[in-house]
Amino acid sequence: MLLGKVVGTLVSTRKDPKLEGLKFLVLQRLNIEGQPIEGYVVAVDAVGAGVEEVVMYATGSSARQTILTDQRPCDAVIMGIVDTWEVNGRVVYQKG
Amino acid sequence: MLLGKVVGTLVSTRKDPKLEGLKFLVLQRLNIEGQPIEGYVVAVDAVGAGVEEVVMYATGSSARQTILTDQRPCDAVIMGIVDTWEVNGRVVYQKG
Amino acid sequence: MLLGKVVGTLVSTRKDPKLEGLKFLVLQRLNIEGQPIEGYVVAVDAVGAGVEEVVMYATGSSARQTILTDQRPCDAVIMGIVDTWEVNGRVVYQKG
Amino acid sequence: MLLGKVVGTLVSTRKDPKLEGLKFLVLQRLNIEGQPIEGYVVAVDAVGAGVEEVVMYATGSSARQTILTDQRPCDAVIMGIVDTWEVNGRVVYQKG
Amino acid sequence: MLLGKVVGTLVSTRKDPKLEGLKFLVLQRLNIEGQPIEGYVVAVDAVGAGVEEVVMYATGSSARQTILTDQRPCDAVIMGIVDTWEVNGRVVYQKG
Repeated sequence: MLLGKVVGTLVSTRKDPKLEGLKFLVLQRLNIEGQPIEGYVVAVDAVGAGVEEVVMYATGSSARQTILTDQRPCDAVIMGIVDTWEVNGRVVYQKG
Repeated sequence: MLLGKVVGTLVSTRKDPKLEGLKFLVLQRLNIEGQPIEGYVVAVDAVGAGVEEVVMYATGSSARQTILTDQRPCDAVIMGIVDTWEVNGRVVYQKG
Repeated sequence: MLLGKVVGTLVSTRKDPKLEGLKFLVLQRLNIEGQPIEGYVVAVDAVGAGVEEVVMYATGSSARQTILTDQRPCDAVIMGIVDTWEVNGRVVYQKG
Repeated sequence: MLLGKVVGTLVSTRKDPKLEGLKFLVLQRLNIEGQPIEGYVVAVDAVGAGVEEVVMYATGSSARQTILTDQRPCDAVIMGIVDTWEVNGRVVYQKG
Repeated sequence: MLLGKVVGTLVSTRKDPKLEGLKFLVLQRLNIEGQPIEGYVVAVDAVGAGVEEVVMYATGSSARQTILTDQRPCDAVIMGIVDTWEVNGRVVYQKG
């Protein structure tokens, strides 16, 4: 999994019928220190994440293993909201 | 999913039989700000997208989860036409 | 899918039994303008492509969706010979 | 598989129900010489790895093939703790 | 598939039970000209490859399609030892 920050939302009216009802969020990628880096992904939200939250996302076929995304043409899913992570014994990020 | 702009079409007469009837579009990749960046993909169109439209596409096995692409040797599919997306509260793109 | 030019062939006698009878071609990657770029892939030929031809290839699990490659340890397949593609209304490539 | 060093842990309370009970570790990627390089991954621990240990991890659908991760939305798993590896006849890494 | 040279071995005693009995080899990636390039992979050996040999490897779910790797948490497999490959009519590599 990789880490991202929810920075926005995306609306698509004309889409594959299997995608009806899913919420698409725009994630800015974060590095191991929690800093934004080049790269983004549009992910389906499976956990009720909000803008500004830091999340874990899974890609590829693993993105279809939540109940919400099962058998849907979705290749990225937010599967956890991050509370905290540590690197080398130091707290890099803690949810406010 | 990633975002792309439909910039062209591709024709292939001699192809795997499972690909008969599919429409191939050439997508220029877009960054989070909606600007074109290095990189492209040839994707199957599952939503009736047209040239100049901004779309979401899925890759890998997820690209075979639309009814149109089920069990076909296709690793990229356009699964939504984008109406709008926002980043940090600002509208980055809005369909004309 | 991405685009490549068939630039060579590869022979492997000692290989997984499931790969018997498959033809391996070496593809040089092409950019959206049809120019060769860094990167290559060895792909199974599912369409009878020849050296110098421009082709579309699929990777990952989608590479196993042709009849030829079903359930084989193959992660790249040529699934179409390209006749022509256009970008921004201009013909970038046309088969000779 | 790629090689990484366990440098930290990650806690996520609000997550997809299928992820309950899994332990998430933060891995710093290593190059072939065992030196840290740009890039990280958050992986599920299937082998009881500890901080500072050097591990092998698998990504994509293969990350769901351990008993622990079967059918879960997980795209990276630690599937082995490395004892030693050699390159060109030289021991690059040996567990302390 | 991509090409690599077997440059070493890796030993992991504590690993997922499904990996028992598999041999892990360290591959240095090769470019289309057969020169070593940045990047490596640890792959399961399905064909009895030896150090110094040039091999083809498959990644992702395709790496689980050999009899040896079926349903195992393995995302890279050596599925062929290369005898020879040609680029633009020139023999780039020939097994010694």
